[in-house]
Amino acid sequence: MNHEEILQSVIKCNNSKIVLLVMDGVGDIRNKDYNYKTPLEYAKTPNLDKLTSESVVGRMIPVSPGITPGSGPGHIGLFGHDPMNTTIGRGVLEAVGLGLHLENGDIAARCNFATIDNEGIIIDRRAGRIPTKKTIELCNVLCSIKEIDGVEIIIEPGKGHRFVTLFRSKNKNIDSLINDTDPQIEGKSPLEAKGNNKSSEFLASVVNKFIKKGFELLRDYPGTNGFLTRGFSKKPNLPSMMEKYCLESAAIATYPMYRGIASLLGMKLLPIPNSIEGLFETYVENRSKYDFFFIHVKGTDQAGEDGDFEAKVNCIEKVDKALKILLNKRPDVIAITADHSSPCPMRSHSFHPVPVLINGDFSGRDDVVYFHENAFNVGGLGFFESKYLMTLLLANAKRLNKFGA
Amino acid sequence: MNHEEILQSVIKCNNSKIVLLVMDGVGDIRNKDYNYKTPLEYAKTPNLDKLTSESVVGRMIPVSPGITPGSGPGHIGLFGHDPMNTTIGRGVLEAVGLGLHLENGDIAARCNFATIDNEGIIIDRRAGRIPTKKTIELCNVLCSIKEIDGVEIIIEPGKGHRFVTLFRSKNKNIDSLINDTDPQIEGKSPLEAKGNNKSSEFLASVVNKFIKKGFELLRDYPGTNGFLTRGFSKKPNLPSMMEKYCLESAAIATYPMYRGIASLLGMKLLPIPNSIEGLFETYVENRSKYDFFFIHVKGTDQAGEDGDFEAKVNCIEKVDKALKILLNKRPDVIAITADHSSPCPMRSHSFHPVPVLINGDFSGRDDVVYFHENAFNVGGLGFFESKYLMTLLLANAKRLNKFGA
Repeated sequence: MNHEEILQSVIKCNNSKIVLLVMDGVGDIRNKDYNYKTPLEYAKTPNLDKLTSESVVGRMIPVSPGITPGSGPGHIGLFGHDPMNTTIGRGVLEAVGLGLHLENGDIAARCNFATIDNEGIIIDRRAGRIPTKKTIELCNVLCSIKEIDGVEIIIEPGKGHRFVTLFRSKNKNIDSLINDTDPQIEGKSPLEAKGNNKSSEFLASVVNKFIKKGFELLRDYPGTNGFLTRGFSKKPNLPSMMEKYCLESAAIATYPMYRGIASLLGMKLLPIPNSIEGLFETYVENRSKYDFFFIHVKGTDQAGEDGDFEAKVNCIEKVDKALKILLNKRPDVIAITADHSSPCPMRSHSFHPVPVLINGDFSGRDDVVYFHENAFNVGGLGFFESKYLMTLLLANAKRLNKFGA
Repeated sequence: MNHEEILQSVIKCNNSKIVLLVMDGVGDIRNKDYNYKTPLEYAKTPNLDKLTSESVVGRMIPVSPGITPGSGPGHIGLFGHDPMNTTIGRGVLEAVGLGLHLENGDIAARCNFATIDNEGIIIDRRAGRIPTKKTIELCNVLCSIKEIDGVEIIIEPGKGHRFVTLFRSKNKNIDSLINDTDPQIEGKSPLEAKGNNKSSEFLASVVNKFIKKGFELLRDYPGTNGFLTRGFSKKPNLPSMMEKYCLESAAIATYPMYRGIASLLGMKLLPIPNSIEGLFETYVENRSKYDFFFIHVKGTDQAGEDGDFEAKVNCIEKVDKALKILLNKRPDVIAITADHSSPCPMRSHSFHPVPVLINGDFSGRDDVVYFHENAFNVGGLGFFESKYLMTLLLANAKRLNKFGA
């Protein structure tokens, strides 16, 4: 048996409540411009520190040592899926990021408007980076294509020159092993879509017809008279949080990408709050209705990617203050962690282990009293891969039976 | 996907420089004869300690918990190959240890001169442990056998009664699934070589002819009138450091064994320095020409295997002093570690986790300020298997893309 099989064999349901607070990208490295402190070390976090002194802590490796995860693998690991073996394709991630609801079997592609000359040669792969407004207008034109050969076509504008196309079929098998029609270089024609198996071949023929019809519709829009497709991918067939863990789950997140990932895992998407306090207030309001709450804070990652140490500190301090709302209505188990680090000096996601805290009646507590990366090196959880976090949360919530006699 | 597949999918090239300093066998255990300190704790190491305070540290498990590696698995892990699944055969290790350059397909066997009586019975498996000088003379005799059935024969004397035979074939398939002809006991005849598959059967017939011819040539040398063969093995088909990591790599090592392992990984072998300072000076001289430097210190392992605590301390202090040469011409990433521990009280390699330090602009730094085993237990790298070290070094050198969207 492997870990997942053992876990599945011991899961039981009860009425406990679990809150997983993800401070996206909060992990950092010590910064020479701030007296060699990390943002978590620098920030004043009395509530997080007090909670730390009542908790067990450690450090979590998002994928495996040295590997920097994108948001997909980062979150997939937090929810107990092996990020090495569970891929959310680019098209699907873009689609859920735009708030599209995907059904099983749906195939998504990232698209962008392009400029094509009279010979069919791509002059500009991004159509002069037209503004979102223009893209919305052009998508409305393309939307007149509702269906091709029994495959429903759904078009959703994105930012700038980007949009997403969904292909949905109730009756026919469609698959996503289809090449990009974007040749990735100007001066060439768009490529023909070709499928790598029977169901993909069929969808490729639909894609080619869609492109032909679309280009005809765009003929009167010089400069944006074509589009390119990339990243064909199928909605991954992930078990819901209920199916996998017997957890009625809800997501409290403001950014579409994270709401999207949550919806792929069958979580209920709660109304979007307009502040960090709002995240926790939404939890309090819905407390009775769910077993598991995924609360997502985006500001920490944003600040890390911007290299803005003080913005990161500020966001952390806001979370610390708002945390009181959660602590006043404590669930049985609280976990606080990140999907990956986003160190300010790197201005990007990184591979560094993230801090992780687990609090509950049965978590125990170690000697750590400050909520930051280096303090957590010596915590009672040690270093472990994030795919094990959900098991630890279920165990702390007494939702797991003993394994073996 | 597994770790290796993910790693391969995210590698990119850049101009960063990485130095991996291996203090062979430096890990130790606290010694009751020296106030319960390890040699690293006992030694005065101001430069290593200062570097530690600017770095992230941890402990590395060479193969897996409790497993003591030989030099082959120990180093193979450091260079990112899974030591559980990558074997360098005994014959090959002996051959590269003698400085022989192996070509793909070459098969090596360890041999030793023996004393055989008139009935063909082995009287002494080591021919009275003849001195190296005598072995060189006898190898010159055997060297008149240049080729058998199209297989080239290359003979290289080793230490004492030992030598290595290489079998090389440009046109015929040869393989190494061949038994030892050494029966491991006196009073028996040497065994016939037999192959376990077709290509090995062919080579076994060559080996038997080689032994027959060789014994005839040795007839006039009573006491050393025969030889035994062991450890037939093929050069492992390892990707070079360039193929695997996009790293133009060089080895700075004095001992043939480590130069040999480096050459199996396609590293350039730089001139042999005659001091510990020389190791680092060689790096400085060649700094512009390579991306990755493997610097190997043998003295720490030697002292550990001799059980000589003070010699080990002395060697560590020499490295500490010489380290300034490296620190004055810092590469982007420095790693300092060992291939395995060699505790003085054990007088041998051991299974104990080794200390590991990573320094660079993006390594971060933890709270550890002393360079020794026990201080490193609470470092920001935690405990991890040495096969992940190369991934961490590449990540620190910004040579890895993000995994997943």
